Amino acid sequence: MFNKVLIANRGEIALRVLRACKELGISTVAVHSTADAEAMHVRLADQSVCIGPPASRDSYLNVHEIIAACEITGADAIHPGYGFLSENAKFAQILEAHDITFIGPSYQHIMTMGDKIEAKQTAKRLGIPVVPGSDGAVTEDDDAKRIASDIGYPVIIKAASGGGGRGMRVVWKESEMGVALQTTRSEAGAAFGDDAVYIEKYLAKPRHIEVQVLGDGKNVGIHLGERDCSLQRRHQKVFEEANSPALNEEQRDRIGMVCANAIGEMGYSGAGTIEFLYEDGEFYFIEMNTRLQVEHPVTEMITSIDLVNEQLRVASGAGLSVGQQDIAFTGHAIECRINAEHPSTFVPSPGKITYYHPPGGLGVRVDSGVFQGYSVPPYYDSLIGKLIVHGRNRVECLMRLRRALDEFVVDGIDTTIPLFRDLLDNQDVQMGDYDIHWLEKFLDEKSKEQANG
Amino acid sequence: MFNKVLIANRGEIALRVLRACKELGISTVAVHSTADAEAMHVRLADQSVCIGPPASRDSYLNVHEIIAACEITGADAIHPGYGFLSENAKFAQILEAHDITFIGPSYQHIMTMGDKIEAKQTAKRLGIPVVPGSDGAVTEDDDAKRIASDIGYPVIIKAASGGGGRGMRVVWKESEMGVALQTTRSEAGAAFGDDAVYIEKYLAKPRHIEVQVLGDGKNVGIHLGERDCSLQRRHQKVFEEANSPALNEEQRDRIGMVCANAIGEMGYSGAGTIEFLYEDGEFYFIEMNTRLQVEHPVTEMITSIDLVNEQLRVASGAGLSVGQQDIAFTGHAIECRINAEHPSTFVPSPGKITYYHPPGGLGVRVDSGVFQGYSVPPYYDSLIGKLIVHGRNRVECLMRLRRALDEFVVDGIDTTIPLFRDLLDNQDVQMGDYDIHWLEKFLDEKSKEQANG
Repeated sequence: MFNKVLIANRGEIALRVLRACKELGISTVAVHSTADAEAMHVRLADQSVCIGPPASRDSYLNVHEIIAACEITGADAIHPGYGFLSENAKFAQILEAHDITFIGPSYQHIMTMGDKIEAKQTAKRLGIPVVPGSDGAVTEDDDAKRIASDIGYPVIIKAASGGGGRGMRVVWKESEMGVALQTTRSEAGAAFGDDAVYIEKYLAKPRHIEVQVLGDGKNVGIHLGERDCSLQRRHQKVFEEANSPALNEEQRDRIGMVCANAIGEMGYSGAGTIEFLYEDGEFYFIEMNTRLQVEHPVTEMITSIDLVNEQLRVASGAGLSVGQQDIAFTGHAIECRINAEHPSTFVPSPGKITYYHPPGGLGVRVDSGVFQGYSVPPYYDSLIGKLIVHGRNRVECLMRLRRALDEFVVDGIDTTIPLFRDLLDNQDVQMGDYDIHWLEKFLDEKSKEQANG
Repeated sequence: MFNKVLIANRGEIALRVLRACKELGISTVAVHSTADAEAMHVRLADQSVCIGPPASRDSYLNVHEIIAACEITGADAIHPGYGFLSENAKFAQILEAHDITFIGPSYQHIMTMGDKIEAKQTAKRLGIPVVPGSDGAVTEDDDAKRIASDIGYPVIIKAASGGGGRGMRVVWKESEMGVALQTTRSEAGAAFGDDAVYIEKYLAKPRHIEVQVLGDGKNVGIHLGERDCSLQRRHQKVFEEANSPALNEEQRDRIGMVCANAIGEMGYSGAGTIEFLYEDGEFYFIEMNTRLQVEHPVTEMITSIDLVNEQLRVASGAGLSVGQQDIAFTGHAIECRINAEHPSTFVPSPGKITYYHPPGGLGVRVDSGVFQGYSVPPYYDSLIGKLIVHGRNRVECLMRLRRALDEFVVDGIDTTIPLFRDLLDNQDVQMGDYDIHWLEKFLDEKSKEQANG
């Protein structure tokens, strides 16, 4: 096992990694910007190094300074957390050249999965279900109709150079295809200077379901079940749960084993997440995240497996502590992301926390880097903590979550805690009946109600 | 289920009960002395009633005021927590007369188990192993020798009217019996005015092991495994764990089933604990506690069963939510009792908490009624919170406990947190190799070391 690990991150995830290191008897090095000199991860680390001014590009993304900090302190390895350098293949490659262990997969795997097209091809090759479509540009109406008929209507025509929700058109039946193709092509040409379009199966109300995997870096891959992260605002997850209320045990096992086998075949090393859209019993690969995710604790709560511990084990050569046969799911877990934001306008709310009291008791976990008297800096993302609750079943979990939210006190700044209280009052959330568009609609309706008085 | 429950207690256990009520959608009534007007349980309850001045006998033991609070607020039931009125059979009986549900067993069961002799007889009748002995006073040397030879040396001679460790003499072999009997008798006569003595098997290095049970009040009893509470100071538990490092699965199941069957046969209702001394593979009944115990969370952590929820269910007539076949043990849990006391002199340290920050993260639970700015009053016991940690196994649990203790900040008063850090450094604690005398010896040695240097 490593003697000393440098944690190239900040906030709750730096603390999360630090805790796993301490529990393995590993010394820790925190790095921090000048804005974070008083942060919790700095206070609790064995050593700390200031790596630059507040702006992330000059500090938490400053590869040169981070490697220098590693060499000065004699750290064996770097844990990148999530965000920042965690999916930067070049960073992982540079560490290899410096003989510092990157706690994560190989840079080749990061690179492959970081490229959308290559990732989809890899997934397909490994037997992971992908969204059926034209596999490239479609020019002829007849080709388009044949492909659409093969995959079934509705389909969506997408501009090859489009993005951000623009240059897309849903086609509900064959008779609409000709006009739709023509219109999308000309819009795409005008908007992106490229009129190439392709066709994919259209998912009207998908859920976001992702599978947590672990690989030993050789040929063993295991899965730890799925998380349902369908409640999103602007593609940001807000509320995550495990297991998904939409899946039964057979579906869970099936998609889990597909992912586990793929990970084993890849020779993937450490923790990763394979993300899917899910609709009508079918999974469609979106992407693979080659790092720890914000929402990893819900998986930990239902499996008792410490994912950071496993990352550290695999990266150090100690191997996974568990095999697939050791993974059992107990109960249900939900995570709420507590952001320093106004709960309905989502305007960031940095500033001093004048009173802080986290909830406690059975089944309640708080992962947070803040404390009373701490000033949330304006330079970074607004996540200040995560409330994770476990219950024997989803109903118990929801009831416990409500009382934990009621106990949570964060004064001095706005937080999203009231949003979660509202969500828990909603019947769709209570029933687990939502898709990836649900939260945006809910927020729209709420803001209209508020505007109307 | 009840509509409204009054919680006749204070501190962390009042909060514990309040949480379980909230998670069942039950309204809560807090009662408090004038000293506790700002306490957490009062702040978080739906209603609160002041029941008297600081002294417990005038407030938390004031049956008249508590019943009045119940009637004023229209509460259906009273949860007594632990201590105070929780094992007061008369209180339970008065509530019955007032048509208020006592959340606990019948007053008859409280009474039976509250009487040492009756409790031991009942245990024996129900097949629970008791300490073998003379079953009453012994007058003749020959009788004493016969009994001692039956149960095996060493034995202990105890004054029938003795107590508190006085009037006892260990006899290691038959040749010592005559003199020992005579000496103990004359000492007992001088000290207690009663020279009657009895004989029991002597346990030199027993552990304290207790079995958590639940009864449905009809004929079903189940057990939730055992807790090892051998680390005690002046008969007060300090550090508790589940399961016991001393037992194997077969022993656990066997003693558990003995207790479960006894509880079923008694028709016992709700939660209880059957306490044993344990030595050389054998269990010896001490007493039964007919209430929730301070250390109940370690059982909750390894079973995911909410014991207060089950108490509420049984008392309301909803029945247990689980049967014996549903109980599975996952991992290992340890509880540290955080007292407002000096960590080596144990002098109480009431006063204002100037900074409070509890630990968080995976496997860490804090049950506490305190908060930053709260003043620990000098009138009640010094327990201010409990740190409970879960891990997949005992080693993981110990490592996690150490890092959680390192994160725990309670400023302004003394606490026993440093004691637990010392305990975790000790090899016996690491190995789980201790008996009920171990902690006293450890503390003696530590205080000698401090005196010398």
